[in-house]
Amino acid sequence: MTEFEQWLARATAETEAVIDAYLPPEEGHQKTVLAAMNYSIKAGGKRLRPLFLREVYRMFGGTGREAEPFMAAIEMIHTFSLIHDDLPCMDNDRLRRGRPTAWVAYGYDMAVLAGDGLALYAFETAAKAFEMTGRTERVATALKLLAQKSGIYGMIGGQTADVELTGRPLSKEQLDFIYRLKTGALLEAPMMIGAVLAGASDQEVRTVERMASLVGYAFQIRDDILDLTGDQEVLGKPVFSDEKNQKTTYVSLYGVDQARRDAEAMSSEAVELLETLPGTHEMLRQLIGMLVTRQK
Amino acid sequence: MTEFEQWLARATAETEAVIDAYLPPEEGHQKTVLAAMNYSIKAGGKRLRPLFLREVYRMFGGTGREAEPFMAAIEMIHTFSLIHDDLPCMDNDRLRRGRPTAWVAYGYDMAVLAGDGLALYAFETAAKAFEMTGRTERVATALKLLAQKSGIYGMIGGQTADVELTGRPLSKEQLDFIYRLKTGALLEAPMMIGAVLAGASDQEVRTVERMASLVGYAFQIRDDILDLTGDQEVLGKPVFSDEKNQKTTYVSLYGVDQARRDAEAMSSEAVELLETLPGTHEMLRQLIGMLVTRQK
Repeated sequence: MTEFEQWLARATAETEAVIDAYLPPEEGHQKTVLAAMNYSIKAGGKRLRPLFLREVYRMFGGTGREAEPFMAAIEMIHTFSLIHDDLPCMDNDRLRRGRPTAWVAYGYDMAVLAGDGLALYAFETAAKAFEMTGRTERVATALKLLAQKSGIYGMIGGQTADVELTGRPLSKEQLDFIYRLKTGALLEAPMMIGAVLAGASDQEVRTVERMASLVGYAFQIRDDILDLTGDQEVLGKPVFSDEKNQKTTYVSLYGVDQARRDAEAMSSEAVELLETLPGTHEMLRQLIGMLVTRQK
Repeated sequence: MTEFEQWLARATAETEAVIDAYLPPEEGHQKTVLAAMNYSIKAGGKRLRPLFLREVYRMFGGTGREAEPFMAAIEMIHTFSLIHDDLPCMDNDRLRRGRPTAWVAYGYDMAVLAGDGLALYAFETAAKAFEMTGRTERVATALKLLAQKSGIYGMIGGQTADVELTGRPLSKEQLDFIYRLKTGALLEAPMMIGAVLAGASDQEVRTVERMASLVGYAFQIRDDILDLTGDQEVLGKPVFSDEKNQKTTYVSLYGVDQARRDAEAMSSEAVELLETLPGTHEMLRQLIGMLVTRQK
């Protein structure tokens, strides 16, 4: 393993531990929904969003623990969106990360409620940060960002356009809207929250937002490329799903070669922005680079 | 009209205006979800939760505007829960308040997203209170209450047990759990938030919680009675739905006479608690009384 790979393995394990610590115990009359929530969040994944939150927080000199509830919260929001995206009335996906999706494992009704439960528990969890720092204003701003970036002007807004326009040819402008909101916003949120909690200036937070937006866009293009060229075994989910669902993607609009080039250019631009920020960047730089070369 | 009826009509209209002011404009690529959200929230209803929030806030001497975003937020949470409850995978209801439910009017996928959108926009809206008062701690506590009372240890928890146990006979203890969480929690939240924002003491907030819990319980029993004895035209929704869905209710467990007596006793106890609190109580007292005699 390279030094980066070692770091990533350790950082991911630490992030998992933080998330685990904030999951609800599976008990009481509402046990089934708690089990469905935990099943979905424990299914794995790269934990990119909480990892970015932590790293940006540290880059700006954050040393407290108040970033931890937000790390768990952003993963809850992400998982909530996946659970609802997989529902029969949405993408109708039966398999995610090599396991049955929540609605297959727990039923349609419990999957709706598990998504709802995670969305609300994300805020309940994030609000615990008020007790972990005297910087109430920063926590308030971070909470606002969590709501804004996941809501109707963020992730849900992008998801709406995505669902509604599936099966129809998209214009470049529509695709851009969806990519910025559906994927971008949920990478902007954790990086901006990390910066805010650590006390970054408004201008720095804006730079972080642009950087995160580019990372999210490049990440989504890589997803499109992998859906066309990836290995189902490695990905843990079916390939060619975009074609099957007649989805316009960056690849279908621009071709795979330009998609690759553009993703790399966005990634490079993100790294350039990163270099203008204070602190050490090495692992973040490699993490951003990895996202446009990943095989899963 | 009695003085109370005049007051209620005016207070409800003012509450409607506050809610309206916080609804998102229906524009952009995500227009459909915004329209579905607004359609559902504008369907009417008694606006009890924001009204209670406002009245408790005023009773404790609150004079600012920071209660307003919370008034809108609690109605958004309530509406989100109704939209998801009505889904085919839940109660499969096609009619609410005399109009097609959200999934009938906008489709299954958009109804899921409209519920999600309202849940998240509730927090985005409530967080606007941070800019409307210097009492950051109070807003933080209010936000925490909003998340707790609507989430897995509040409304969603109750809804989970309700959905899962429908069609099976419920024990008194299970019914109690469902009533306390599904209905009670979402009346506790606004009254407690009103108290907290106005600067009530911890002990006063606890009294408000108990009072609201009793009001919620009595309210739910009245719902059960109306489902059995009410007028479909007046209610704007089908009657006998509990029987049809083989639902155990307070009425099916205890009989309609005892249900009536218990709802009245709970209502009286709530009013007794109210009388121990500072400020003027007259309209709140009548409002609580009305809930156990209402015909819709």
